[in-house]
Amino acid sequence: MINDELQKRAQVLIEALPYIRHFYGKHIVIKYGGKAMVDEKLKRQVIADIVLLHYVGIKPVLVHGGGPEINEVMRQMGKQPKFVGGLRVTDEETVRIVEMVLTGSVNKELVELFNQNGARAIGLSGKDGNLFTARRLTPDETEGVDLGFVGEVESINTDVLRVLIDNGYIPVIASIGSDKDGKTLNLNADHVAGKLAAAIHAAKLIVLTDVRGICRDQNDELTLISTLTDEDALRLIEEGVIGEGMIPKVQACIEALKGGVEKAHIISGAIPHALLMELFTDEGIGTMIIRSGVS
Amino acid sequence: MINDELQKRAQVLIEALPYIRHFYGKHIVIKYGGKAMVDEKLKRQVIADIVLLHYVGIKPVLVHGGGPEINEVMRQMGKQPKFVGGLRVTDEETVRIVEMVLTGSVNKELVELFNQNGARAIGLSGKDGNLFTARRLTPDETEGVDLGFVGEVESINTDVLRVLIDNGYIPVIASIGSDKDGKTLNLNADHVAGKLAAAIHAAKLIVLTDVRGICRDQNDELTLISTLTDEDALRLIEEGVIGEGMIPKVQACIEALKGGVEKAHIISGAIPHALLMELFTDEGIGTMIIRSGVS
Amino acid sequence: MINDELQKRAQVLIEALPYIRHFYGKHIVIKYGGKAMVDEKLKRQVIADIVLLHYVGIKPVLVHGGGPEINEVMRQMGKQPKFVGGLRVTDEETVRIVEMVLTGSVNKELVELFNQNGARAIGLSGKDGNLFTARRLTPDETEGVDLGFVGEVESINTDVLRVLIDNGYIPVIASIGSDKDGKTLNLNADHVAGKLAAAIHAAKLIVLTDVRGICRDQNDELTLISTLTDEDALRLIEEGVIGEGMIPKVQACIEALKGGVEKAHIISGAIPHALLMELFTDEGIGTMIIRSGVS
Amino acid sequence: MINDELQKRAQVLIEALPYIRHFYGKHIVIKYGGKAMVDEKLKRQVIADIVLLHYVGIKPVLVHGGGPEINEVMRQMGKQPKFVGGLRVTDEETVRIVEMVLTGSVNKELVELFNQNGARAIGLSGKDGNLFTARRLTPDETEGVDLGFVGEVESINTDVLRVLIDNGYIPVIASIGSDKDGKTLNLNADHVAGKLAAAIHAAKLIVLTDVRGICRDQNDELTLISTLTDEDALRLIEEGVIGEGMIPKVQACIEALKGGVEKAHIISGAIPHALLMELFTDEGIGTMIIRSGVS
Amino acid sequence: MINDELQKRAQVLIEALPYIRHFYGKHIVIKYGGKAMVDEKLKRQVIADIVLLHYVGIKPVLVHGGGPEINEVMRQMGKQPKFVGGLRVTDEETVRIVEMVLTGSVNKELVELFNQNGARAIGLSGKDGNLFTARRLTPDETEGVDLGFVGEVESINTDVLRVLIDNGYIPVIASIGSDKDGKTLNLNADHVAGKLAAAIHAAKLIVLTDVRGICRDQNDELTLISTLTDEDALRLIEEGVIGEGMIPKVQACIEALKGGVEKAHIISGAIPHALLMELFTDEGIGTMIIRSGVS
Amino acid sequence: MINDELQKRAQVLIEALPYIRHFYGKHIVIKYGGKAMVDEKLKRQVIADIVLLHYVGIKPVLVHGGGPEINEVMRQMGKQPKFVGGLRVTDEETVRIVEMVLTGSVNKELVELFNQNGARAIGLSGKDGNLFTARRLTPDETEGVDLGFVGEVESINTDVLRVLIDNGYIPVIASIGSDKDGKTLNLNADHVAGKLAAAIHAAKLIVLTDVRGICRDQNDELTLISTLTDEDALRLIEEGVIGEGMIPKVQACIEALKGGVEKAHIISGAIPHALLMELFTDEGIGTMIIRSGVS
Repeated sequence: MINDELQKRAQVLIEALPYIRHFYGKHIVIKYGGKAMVDEKLKRQVIADIVLLHYVGIKPVLVHGGGPEINEVMRQMGKQPKFVGGLRVTDEETVRIVEMVLTGSVNKELVELFNQNGARAIGLSGKDGNLFTARRLTPDETEGVDLGFVGEVESINTDVLRVLIDNGYIPVIASIGSDKDGKTLNLNADHVAGKLAAAIHAAKLIVLTDVRGICRDQNDELTLISTLTDEDALRLIEEGVIGEGMIPKVQACIEALKGGVEKAHIISGAIPHALLMELFTDEGIGTMIIRSGVS
Repeated sequence: MINDELQKRAQVLIEALPYIRHFYGKHIVIKYGGKAMVDEKLKRQVIADIVLLHYVGIKPVLVHGGGPEINEVMRQMGKQPKFVGGLRVTDEETVRIVEMVLTGSVNKELVELFNQNGARAIGLSGKDGNLFTARRLTPDETEGVDLGFVGEVESINTDVLRVLIDNGYIPVIASIGSDKDGKTLNLNADHVAGKLAAAIHAAKLIVLTDVRGICRDQNDELTLISTLTDEDALRLIEEGVIGEGMIPKVQACIEALKGGVEKAHIISGAIPHALLMELFTDEGIGTMIIRSGVS
Repeated sequence: MINDELQKRAQVLIEALPYIRHFYGKHIVIKYGGKAMVDEKLKRQVIADIVLLHYVGIKPVLVHGGGPEINEVMRQMGKQPKFVGGLRVTDEETVRIVEMVLTGSVNKELVELFNQNGARAIGLSGKDGNLFTARRLTPDETEGVDLGFVGEVESINTDVLRVLIDNGYIPVIASIGSDKDGKTLNLNADHVAGKLAAAIHAAKLIVLTDVRGICRDQNDELTLISTLTDEDALRLIEEGVIGEGMIPKVQACIEALKGGVEKAHIISGAIPHALLMELFTDEGIGTMIIRSGVS
Repeated sequence: MINDELQKRAQVLIEALPYIRHFYGKHIVIKYGGKAMVDEKLKRQVIADIVLLHYVGIKPVLVHGGGPEINEVMRQMGKQPKFVGGLRVTDEETVRIVEMVLTGSVNKELVELFNQNGARAIGLSGKDGNLFTARRLTPDETEGVDLGFVGEVESINTDVLRVLIDNGYIPVIASIGSDKDGKTLNLNADHVAGKLAAAIHAAKLIVLTDVRGICRDQNDELTLISTLTDEDALRLIEEGVIGEGMIPKVQACIEALKGGVEKAHIISGAIPHALLMELFTDEGIGTMIIRSGVS
Repeated sequence: MINDELQKRAQVLIEALPYIRHFYGKHIVIKYGGKAMVDEKLKRQVIADIVLLHYVGIKPVLVHGGGPEINEVMRQMGKQPKFVGGLRVTDEETVRIVEMVLTGSVNKELVELFNQNGARAIGLSGKDGNLFTARRLTPDETEGVDLGFVGEVESINTDVLRVLIDNGYIPVIASIGSDKDGKTLNLNADHVAGKLAAAIHAAKLIVLTDVRGICRDQNDELTLISTLTDEDALRLIEEGVIGEGMIPKVQACIEALKGGVEKAHIISGAIPHALLMELFTDEGIGTMIIRSGVS
Repeated sequence: MINDELQKRAQVLIEALPYIRHFYGKHIVIKYGGKAMVDEKLKRQVIADIVLLHYVGIKPVLVHGGGPEINEVMRQMGKQPKFVGGLRVTDEETVRIVEMVLTGSVNKELVELFNQNGARAIGLSGKDGNLFTARRLTPDETEGVDLGFVGEVESINTDVLRVLIDNGYIPVIASIGSDKDGKTLNLNADHVAGKLAAAIHAAKLIVLTDVRGICRDQNDELTLISTLTDEDALRLIEEGVIGEGMIPKVQACIEALKGGVEKAHIISGAIPHALLMELFTDEGIGTMIIRSGVS
């Protein structure tokens, strides 16, 4: 007489227990981006997933960029976005717009979605609590192109994260920082996520992208590689198997692994509840990268 | 291409979120008994359910009796169990056996099941940490029958529960206590659960029984009453609708509600994962009792 | 032989001691706005003053708006700022721009200035940590005009402030909030400061404006009123002595005093180090409002 | 005029001060067994001694077995106790009885005695809080005899002891554990006490036996050895001076010393207040074993 | 064979247990004075007694005066001690000497004795940590005599005592204070002890004197009153039964009882270990004063 | 219109910010002595300076001697102060007077001055909380002269300082200690300050003297050396440039630097607010000694 459906639901919950137990009390850094940040429904699902992680005792940290919205605002302000080799050329006016959009629009929208889902989040950029200090890239580092106010994380000060997480807040971090002189710099969000994951000794880095993971043939999802080592990944970059758009994501994973993170994942944010599927099943749904030589 | 099954499982998890959020950090007292304590498979499922509650931030406290196993050991020791009006006549030798079986066999088996499920439990009786003090019932209180060493909880000292729960341990409590002179007393586990739920300001008391809940016609589960008030429940007892076996369970619920517990539930422990179904769905699967006059 | 100048400097420090002692460990809410937020030099001075307060054991909380920069960005985006009765008409696109500018540009610039001065600040809006929830004003409340997405603070949740302040961070709060449905609302920063000061039991609310304080004759600074009660202030509003631009500031002060704040001050942010002069001297430099009937 | 008796009593208390000071805040593991666990009066005295230790700032941990009571219950249940080489052959039914008697009868009686003496104790077995995990002994390890469900401690998890002791509870531990698969195992209580003493860095292990200590001639208490080293003890075992019954006690002492315990004692529990006499006088009343090469 | 003496000593210790348990964790204020502060042997015994109290979990606070040594130093400095009605006339030079002797000689000697007995004490006067503020007595309050710099405690600030006691230090307090203007005042040590006992909610105030307690006939110790109420005590003062020297001691006791202290004792410090005899036996050896109407 | 004077005062405060920030949360040991301890006005200024340091987040520890007052009391008591090679010959009676004056008069007066300035101080000698243990100097160590009860610090027990400072109290330490047998010893206050500064890892040791600092020509303040290394200082002692009176001060500085203190200063306590001038300006007003080889 008891509803079979209820029975099945209970069964699913109980099957999640070993995973919940495994990640209990651990930090997981999630790089949020791509379609999952544009589609309203996907956005709500990602946030709900993260709130669930929070309530079952996992400690998520969210890092985000926000390309599409930046371009839109730039165009509204009569400025044409410019890219060289896939990287945004960021003059002084552009960096101001990038910061405004990332920390004042994208970030606050995410924070509000946490409120709506019954969790408390705090939006941060590298400037808040001096979370991280960045360094402007020289043209030498960007193949001779002057990208303007573009930088990379130099040092991280995790105290503010510890304070917020210990008090039950979820940090939501925009990929904006400043250098020692206070100059605002546009940072690559994948890179920021990798660095932060290492700095807080996260158990996992999960990068949400628009594709299924690393595929042997980028045009055929059936060639998805489920697991590979960081050494394998480096070789695949050299061999050109991993395409340009995917390279910074893979590099962020490798950086995190080097810094002591146990496992890094590249999964598709376009699949509803991809986070839960990757974390709470053995098979997973994307690509997992592990350190070579570590069983 | 993604497995529909995985998708569905993630959906189930996310639908549990509002319930998890609602009970987060709250105490729930579970009276464990009946078939669910005899059937090996059911036993494992109940413990797994409780471990899940623990990991999603709920604070379960387990109270148990253990009738069938007591009778078995008594018979092995050449003693015939004796009941008057459904209550065990407990002479000095019997109370020694009851304590030995409840605290030394049933309790330790439950504690070990928690170990096997990756959670840490501590077995207690009323004697441990002086958790509760009891008082021997007089024949006047038991319709003229001298039940021997049978008593009821007089005062509760919740400090040991607070210490254990705050440090991540699940208390598993056998319904045995002692009076001021140190005499061991056999206590009714439903009653103990109701008193404890009130003492620790639990959000819920859940009584696991062998039937679906309170039914208008005890022989027809289709007459199950989903929700009723404590006043309704008292009337149904007076009217004889609630049968003798169910009365102590209902009284325990009423006692808990009086003591400030928000809701009390009587559900069937024979249904796999009944706990999760009752806690994590709106419909529930048994009977919920609420205070009259409280919306 | 000892430098007279050094001697004099030491003397000044020592004369600040009674004031430092008096405010030690107390919260002071500072509403930051006007010229002091436009002029680069004044901006640096205000932040340096607040950093000094922080280091001498006072607990400052900063609340800011940012009118001029909003207008500038709106114009860059081809939108004409519109005001009715001095209040900004805030349609959906406008509120998005207001939020972006206040929380993503003005707020982050202030936070960075704290970094440059050796203190750690965290930028917040009402959305972060659900610091406050707002309510959209109805046309009835705004003299029949539909101001759009404009609201007022309804409830405040001070936990995040406590956590940050106890851990040595200075909160910098933009006057943006959201209602229960997550809709972003533009709030009056004076009003937010007054409400917050009451909620955290601040010792003082200090409103930085562009004039010396409340003057009997707005065109003559020599008519400055040094001290008045909240009742006096209400009467002066009724009598039309206090002009329209000053009214919300005075109302914020009255609201703070009603909520238990000891003293409220309106001072000119255009005077270098006005904060220090008001806090660390008996005379003060602006207008102080106290509760009537409290000596 | 003042009572000489009172004077003398005060003198005795004051002479205990150097000993109290010396053991203040230190852990002492007491292996409780033999006549002192059978005789009602001795039992009360041992518990009173331990309560006194607790109140003067020492942190006692009690470990007990319970041979005689096990045999009695086995016989009541129609089972004949069987021993090979002094060790109990423990089939599945026997281990169930052993656990029931040790954790459900002996342990709870001790806990209740603490209640009666105004201290709060918590009864534990290896299963509670996963205090220790055991390993079943192979016939190879027991001279070719299959002793059944008999094991030895493999790993200890002291967290639950720390939590209880820090909160003012006295742990009372029955020598029952389980292996990784949850199988219950009968353990030697001397061995458990020795292992625990090492694990919690106890200052002392005190083994209560039925004889005065180690004697050169087991039949002549006048040949009692007051102090010897662990090396001496090993030699005496080899030479056959230390009899079979005493060997596990001496081995437990040696194991504790190896693990860092400062001193181990074997004393007679049949002497009233033997614990106090051993701890609070220089002479002591039994045998003290120290590490060789440590002054 | 076991030494009867050892046995007896253990018995004495165990008989102290109920008393130790009763006072465990409670504050006891001891007014130290009279012969017990002059005789070297008695001095050592009193300190040893207090160290014992400290180690068995009681929290002693010591208050002392120091008449004889003050007179001695005054004479060495060529000043003649002067008394009116038993009270020291304390001119400016005298108060300087009194402070110097009490806080710089008597107090430090006591502190050092604690060091020698293995406990850590901190010497304080009312000035240290602003422990108490005093008020100069007017001639009206001293029967028309101007006693000079003599005062009484006006307000007590127990924070420093809490900090020291919680960290394991024994406070040793000299009866010297200062008024609001910083003027040093000589205070009556009995009075200070009574006030402090009330302020810290002590379980007991014990006044060490040179006589057995309150006697019906001051010249006959056989007329000692073992127990009386505060009302009885007041009546005996009125009736002249209690002599002038004893009155301030009795008044201190009454003040302490009024402030919530459970029991106050007047005992002879000339009896070795009087403190232990009074605290650790039912009979006691002096006079105990209790509140009338409190059973 | 705004008072120029106010403006200037604010400017001075703000210019102190970098210094305040630099010393925030750090320990500074101040050796107090010389004229600054005799002149009433200077005394008040030094205490006010230290209270200011305390309120701006620096953690001062004061060490003092008290030569002139000792001599005065000795003479009042008919004893002639005797010095050999600048060191006081301290017989048993003298050491008693020295302790009485230092801990009972000088120390308490300083503590009271802190009360008057709104800060809470606790007076200590080496005996209190067993802060330090000393060792009597042998005639061999004092050029063949038997100086009597004169010693040097042997071991320091910083727990009491940590407890007091963490709870907001300022320790004021008299240079008196005791040896292992409890014998009181007169200690050199410079030496005590140097040892303590090293033991608590102070950022600075500041020695207040009666001269400007170390001068090449002691009779010409214009030859003041602003900065030198510890090696330079040792060489200047050997060369006789540093006079006898200054040597113990310089040695204390060197000892502190060896123990890890960052910088040591010798300044004139006769200059009003010398402490503030030295700490809060780059130039300083006396001599700063740094470790050689440390930039």
